[in-house]
This record gives sequence, structure tokens and C-alpha cells, in this order.
Amino acid sequence: MDDRPIGVFDSGVGGLTVVKEIIRQLPQEDIVYFGDTAHLPYGPKSFQTIKRLVRDNIHFLLKKKIKAVILACHTASAFTLEEMREENPIPIIGVIRPGAGEALRVTKNKRIGVIGTYGTIKSGAYAKELKRLEPEAFVIEKPCPLFVPLVEEGWIEKEATRLIVREYLEPLKEEEIDTLILGCTHYPLLKKEITQVMGEVSLIDSARATVGRLKRILEEKNLLAREGVPRHSFFVSDAPERFARLGKIFLGKEIEKVERV
Amino acid sequence: MDDRPIGVFDSGVGGLTVVKEIIRQLPQEDIVYFGDTAHLPYGPKSFQTIKRLVRDNIHFLLKKKIKAVILACHTASAFTLEEMREENPIPIIGVIRPGAGEALRVTKNKRIGVIGTYGTIKSGAYAKELKRLEPEAFVIEKPCPLFVPLVEEGWIEKEATRLIVREYLEPLKEEEIDTLILGCTHYPLLKKEITQVMGEVSLIDSARATVGRLKRILEEKNLLAREGVPRHSFFVSDAPERFARLGKIFLGKEIEKVERV
Repeated sequence: MDDRPIGVFDSGVGGLTVVKEIIRQLPQEDIVYFGDTAHLPYGPKSFQTIKRLVRDNIHFLLKKKIKAVILACHTASAFTLEEMREENPIPIIGVIRPGAGEALRVTKNKRIGVIGTYGTIKSGAYAKELKRLEPEAFVIEKPCPLFVPLVEEGWIEKEATRLIVREYLEPLKEEEIDTLILGCTHYPLLKKEITQVMGEVSLIDSARATVGRLKRILEEKNLLAREGVPRHSFFVSDAPERFARLGKIFLGKEIEKVERV
Repeated sequence: MDDRPIGVFDSGVGGLTVVKEIIRQLPQEDIVYFGDTAHLPYGPKSFQTIKRLVRDNIHFLLKKKIKAVILACHTASAFTLEEMREENPIPIIGVIRPGAGEALRVTKNKRIGVIGTYGTIKSGAYAKELKRLEPEAFVIEKPCPLFVPLVEEGWIEKEATRLIVREYLEPLKEEEIDTLILGCTHYPLLKKEITQVMGEVSLIDSARATVGRLKRILEEKNLLAREGVPRHSFFVSDAPERFARLGKIFLGKEIEKVERV
């Protein structure tokens, strides 16, 4: 047993979909969240800048005596996971491998779509991982950069949103994929609109798959926390009020305290 | 006469609409542009962070021996103009006062709308300036945060864009404004869609008004450059390729060289 908290890192609020999954799958665990809101979004930044920021942010979380870290930011996972694992003494879990693994367990025709920000798609990280695990997989990737601002504006059930979802996803539908990876922590909030366009296609929620992976690691290493009332702490590098306001959309409940560091 | 370049600062590519206006109104002038792309967007950042960034960026431009600076970033203009003027020895021109002045020259019924990012609207900077210059003005402000991602995605003439423009602007139309300030450097690219919704309303392009103000200052202080082939230099703090790609949409022509500093 290990009562130290789980660290969750993201560039902004999106990683709260991971927090929501931890609360669902591992309700006894303490959580320390860090959102690097002073530097978001990571997508358009260079590799060097992203690596420097992720390193700084993991150091901040390590000072909070965490037992594991989830890199909930897809850009950070795509570009820095291996190096961060080499540099740090605790388990570091990215969001890309669990999502890719889950997609391959679910697909029947091995035709898989991936949607994400420009940064994530440009990295090719999902395609590489899917091909590594299953060389015969057919993978089609598509950046959907308007989804994040739509979700952050709270425009979920709107006609404009439906048109945008359709325009982005129609080309994937034509490729007859049977599985679609939601390769961005914001996208699960658009599940309903995405299903309306994609029909019978299985949607892979990377937050859910990632927390499933975390749970197995904690079990294997005997690091699960004891039963008790969990503490959830939220830190950001800038604009805590905005984080708290948007956070409510993602977490589905009020965030009582957000600390600026 | 003064052949030193004009400095233009923005958090990203949007300030290139100001560069385009300088080239139109002051074609003989050298220009040094700095886009702080490592830290964009400024809108959601705190006042302290914005001030620190703007100070650093003006220092960078001063090292390039400029004779004047335009703060093309509305957030920077709204929050830091007075302090930057006190701290620096050259003319510093924001985008808010020139836009407000132009709106008051154009309006007949003194009912003026202002659209911008959350940061700009939350600052209330346009409303304060309009009220200071004309206490009887009726001002209605509206944040349109989806316009920037739509423009940056190149989604100008799309049905979804028209729906979003309509949803944001219908409430302004009902207020019977006769003048609308485009309070964000990205918005002039949506002029056509905005006109379709707003009809006969006069649109105030703050980039155009700001460069008009710059021109008068350079004339008054005898700082205009001599005739010659102008040099335009572009610097960014991150991701120069993305800047060059997006920059083409704003400037209407290829940007040959973008240097990362």
C-alpha cells in the first residue's frame, strides 16, 4: 500500500478528463494536478520548448511526493515520454500507448482513425505506436484544431459544432474505419456529436484507457492507496479563476480551490 | 528624416494585419516584427505575466534600434500601454485608442459595438476609452473567442463560420449600433461574414486606424524614413514555420525568412 498522491500533468484543463477517470476507477487515490496554463497551448511549440516545460513541470510534481505521473497532455506524451522515463525514478504514463492498445483490442477490421490537435497528429505518435503493435493496421490521422476552442467555449450541442464535426470527420468515415481514437483530452466532451457523424464506429477515450493502465501498474507494484477520503489538489502556472471556471465543464463538478504557483 | 525601423509587437501572427497596413500607408518604412509565439495566447494570462512578457519583448525590439513601437496585441495594449510609455524613450502606440477615436469619428447615433477576445473584452479597455472621449456614447461589448481559431484554420467562407458569426453578433445587431470595432487583429479577415450579419454597420479596422495614428506621429516628429527599398524582418520566440505558414493568410504574401530568437 502507498498513500502518496498520483500526479497528473497537462498544459491546461483538458487533463481533468483523466482526473475524472481516476476518481471513477481509483476513488481512494489522492491526486495532485498541475496545469501549465502560463504556457498553453503546447501544440504549436517546438520540441525543445516542450521538453524544457515538461521537465520543469514534472519536477514541480515530484516535490509534492507523488508515486506516479500521468502526462495527460498528448503533445507532451508524444514528444517527451521516453526521456522523462529515463530521467525520473517513478512510473510515468503517457496517454498515447494506452489509447493505441485499447484501439487494437477493440477493432475488428484493423482500420483505425486518430483525431487530435495539429501537434499530436504531426508527431505521428499514435500511428507509430499502432503500427509497432500491429504492422497490418491501417491508420488514418486527422487534425481537428477547432474542437478544443469549441469545447472551451462550451459550444457542445450547437449546429455550427455539428457542421464542423461533420466536415472534419466525413473523410474518416469514407475510409471505413471501425475504431476512432479521441487523441485529445478535450474530445470526449464531443462524443455525442462525433457518434452522430461516425455511427457504429467504436470511440476510444484515451483518458479511460490511460487510467486503466495506471491501475494495473499500481496493482502490480503494490502501490494502491488505502481506503479513505481522498484529497485532490489543483495547481496552475497562471489564471486560476479561468481554470476553475472551465474545469467545471470537464470534471462535471465545482473545483473548490486552485492555487497559482 | 529617420531611417530606423518601426517595431511591431504581437503575441502571434495577428499583428501582421498591422504590418500590411504599414506597407500600404508607409511603404518606405523598415519594419521589425516580433511575435511572442512561445507564450501565445496572451488573452487568458494574468496581468503580471502579460506585463513581464511585454517588457521583455519591447527590450528585444529596442535592441534592433527602432524609432517607434506598435503594440499590435490588444491584450498588451489594454493592460500595459501606460507603463510601457513611462518606461521607454520612444513613441509607443497601442491599438485601442486609435480604434476608439476612429469609431467616434464615424458613428452618427453614438451606439458602438466592440468585439474581441475574452481578455480584451474583460479588460473593458475600449469601453473606457470610448466613454472617456464621449461620455454620451452607448457601448456594447461582446467576446467572440472562436473567431481567432477559425481564422487560423483558414475557415473564412464556411457555413459553420457564418453560423458562429451570426450567433455572436445577432445580440449586437438588436442593439441598433451603427459602428462596430473589430477589436482583435485577426477579425479583419472575417469582414465579409461580419458585414453579411451586420448589414449597414460601419466596421472599424483597428490596424488601419493605428497605422494612421503612427503616420501622424512620425510626421509631427519628423521621423519618416527616406524613399528607398524597405526591409521587413520577422522574429518569433517559437515555431517559425507555423508563423510563416499562417502569416501568409494575414499578410497576403509569402514571408521569406522568419528567425527564432
